[in-house]
Amino acid sequence: MLHLTAFLGPYGHHVAAWRHPDTDLKSSLFDLYRHQAQVAERACLDAVFFADNVALTGTPTLEPLTLLSALAASTTHLGLIGTVTTTYNEPYHVARKVASLDAISNGRAGWNLVTSDNAAEAGNFGRTEHVPHAERYARAREFYDVVDGLWRTIAPDAFVDDKAGGVLLDPGKVRPLDHHGAHFDVAGPLNVRPSPQGRPVVVQAGSSDTGRALAAATADMVFTAQPDLASSLAFYRDMQARREKAGRGPLRIMPGIYAVVGESEAHARDKYEQLQDLIEPKAGLALLGRMIGNFDLSGYPLDGPLPELPLTDNGQRSRQQLLTSIAQGENLTIRQLYQRIAGGRGHFTVIGTGAQVADRIQEWFEAGACDGFNLMAPALPGGLEDFAQYVVPELQRRGLFRTAYTTRTLRGHLELPQGVLAAR
Amino acid sequence: MLHLTAFLGPYGHHVAAWRHPDTDLKSSLFDLYRHQAQVAERACLDAVFFADNVALTGTPTLEPLTLLSALAASTTHLGLIGTVTTTYNEPYHVARKVASLDAISNGRAGWNLVTSDNAAEAGNFGRTEHVPHAERYARAREFYDVVDGLWRTIAPDAFVDDKAGGVLLDPGKVRPLDHHGAHFDVAGPLNVRPSPQGRPVVVQAGSSDTGRALAAATADMVFTAQPDLASSLAFYRDMQARREKAGRGPLRIMPGIYAVVGESEAHARDKYEQLQDLIEPKAGLALLGRMIGNFDLSGYPLDGPLPELPLTDNGQRSRQQLLTSIAQGENLTIRQLYQRIAGGRGHFTVIGTGAQVADRIQEWFEAGACDGFNLMAPALPGGLEDFAQYVVPELQRRGLFRTAYTTRTLRGHLELPQGVLAAR
Repeated sequence: MLHLTAFLGPYGHHVAAWRHPDTDLKSSLFDLYRHQAQVAERACLDAVFFADNVALTGTPTLEPLTLLSALAASTTHLGLIGTVTTTYNEPYHVARKVASLDAISNGRAGWNLVTSDNAAEAGNFGRTEHVPHAERYARAREFYDVVDGLWRTIAPDAFVDDKAGGVLLDPGKVRPLDHHGAHFDVAGPLNVRPSPQGRPVVVQAGSSDTGRALAAATADMVFTAQPDLASSLAFYRDMQARREKAGRGPLRIMPGIYAVVGESEAHARDKYEQLQDLIEPKAGLALLGRMIGNFDLSGYPLDGPLPELPLTDNGQRSRQQLLTSIAQGENLTIRQLYQRIAGGRGHFTVIGTGAQVADRIQEWFEAGACDGFNLMAPALPGGLEDFAQYVVPELQRRGLFRTAYTTRTLRGHLELPQGVLAAR
Repeated sequence: MLHLTAFLGPYGHHVAAWRHPDTDLKSSLFDLYRHQAQVAERACLDAVFFADNVALTGTPTLEPLTLLSALAASTTHLGLIGTVTTTYNEPYHVARKVASLDAISNGRAGWNLVTSDNAAEAGNFGRTEHVPHAERYARAREFYDVVDGLWRTIAPDAFVDDKAGGVLLDPGKVRPLDHHGAHFDVAGPLNVRPSPQGRPVVVQAGSSDTGRALAAATADMVFTAQPDLASSLAFYRDMQARREKAGRGPLRIMPGIYAVVGESEAHARDKYEQLQDLIEPKAGLALLGRMIGNFDLSGYPLDGPLPELPLTDNGQRSRQQLLTSIAQGENLTIRQLYQRIAGGRGHFTVIGTGAQVADRIQEWFEAGACDGFNLMAPALPGGLEDFAQYVVPELQRRGLFRTAYTTRTLRGHLELPQGVLAAR
């Protein structure tokens, strides 16, 4: 079975989505997100997903775990995946907050473990310079070990609930962690009990060699940007081989898909062009600059080629390589490149009817290039509603996607084994 | 008008509440808390309040802001106050999470700013020793400045929403913070927009001279443990004088009240005794040891006096002094002292009918000893339901408490001025 997650955002993934005539700028962000989550749940999606920045970039947002917890109380089955950086955080806080979300949602939480790809975050945490790439990944690896270790400090059967005997919690089933490493010293135990899924789902989006190695060693699910079937197939095979070598369980690999869906192909193309026409050069250039590693492109002619850029150390190194290779391969000017990425940002892009989009999804899935997709709607909620209305029923008719939830936890939806149950 | 908040916890404030025959150990913590919050909202209380420990002490809980966000989605008017320590946290994260809760709840968030009073937290954040008292308070003061400053970095009228002109956010109404201090360097701006109440309510529970000074300089509301009217009157006058000297706006002062309420006085007394009979010496002794500054009392005879104790630096210094003075004043043995505090923990304790409890509340309020109370129910949800059923209607009949919400924000309920609206 195919898996589908919805990558949410206030107005949509296209850089000009907020300018679309249908976009609601008046409602509260929470009201917008709650509606999006309820659309996703009605379509039986596996989960919703939020990215994150711990600095103001573009428009203000909401902290993902705080938001997801409110969405947990507004939904019943939908998985809830939030991004939390390992670069400017403490593992005890992260283990605790994700476990709290997991408990509140009865086992629907996922943690997208990232290293900060936004150099501006450093200044909010007492640093004048961003933590360098290699150190970010070393810290992330140890951060994962601490969080995963804390999630195992209370055994699910530790709760004895013996009122007469006066024993609530069996102390023999609660262990300290006593982690001592290069980056962290953490005593434990955690102060949150495990959820029905055992432990939260761990998600990653590593693409560099270091990122892939981290994901293979730690993740249950990988989000990835793949522009075409061949590259996704190569990525899928590489990641699954790495996972197998690491001796770990199933790994769900989910490329992003920027799908513009309409009743007819012409209708879909009109929707695509309507957003493209709303791109302002300044906004397009700023987006492109951020995605190639925080470079200022304003000094270069819009209708000239992308300049040679040094390999970024500020994050998004793989995205920089992907976009540079698209620009070179298709011989694009700076303007053409930002137009090319203004919606899908380098992800697989499909424009068409429900059946046409379902064809491409089926093609990738059956070729073994993915386990499903992370949906990037052009404008929200309309783009997600279109996908739910036109593509999901088509996938269901083809027997590729569930018609109702059959499990209650995110691990269940993803057909992942229950998290380890015994304290270690 | 009187203000009332409910201090929640999974099973109740009495150390043996979890052993009460009516206590539900099977439901999820979130289901328990949601029910408690809904009882509080039906009774038109100003807010619910959660304490916190960033270490396992007693039974596992949920992280307060994550929990409150889920409660925000389950209520419409109730204020939502969560404790977050300044000792083992970063101000950008705290400013952001509390602002996110405030945005999600449409202006119902409060932050109980504390310094960690639990030495075990140090070990979860890479420290072998707890941060000393004076340093904790110096850090807390600067932490507040950073958080409050971040909350003012985006002006509420910064959102222009001009689709045609391509301007979503007026950059002239967003300012960096550029804070550089002894403990923190924080660039800002925050990445969350202000809520309808302007900025969240700041709560504190400082009782030492240092704690009172901090509260007078920063808080909108103070929780306090006062065993009798005279001590509360003295505290109230001292705090309001300090606030006036600081030139700040209104400050709501809320002592805790451990109210055991029944249909008759005999019924209330039976309820009180039923819980007292469930105290196990080990649990009572552990509670007392924690509350006098993490001292191990197991080597002392239960029926002998409390030993002389050095002034604690581990936190709860004021509570240590309060309990020592109760023990000396009433000539209590160790056993009698833990029995005395097993429910109310040194707070004002009242046992009686709705009218009798309302009499005492009215007496304190009209004497100018408080602006209201923080309700500490013996067992939950029963103790809160009793208060809602018997005491609240009595207070309403006397014109002391609202019969319906007349505002939608926590600042509104507390009759506090709207948070500052302009970015500074």
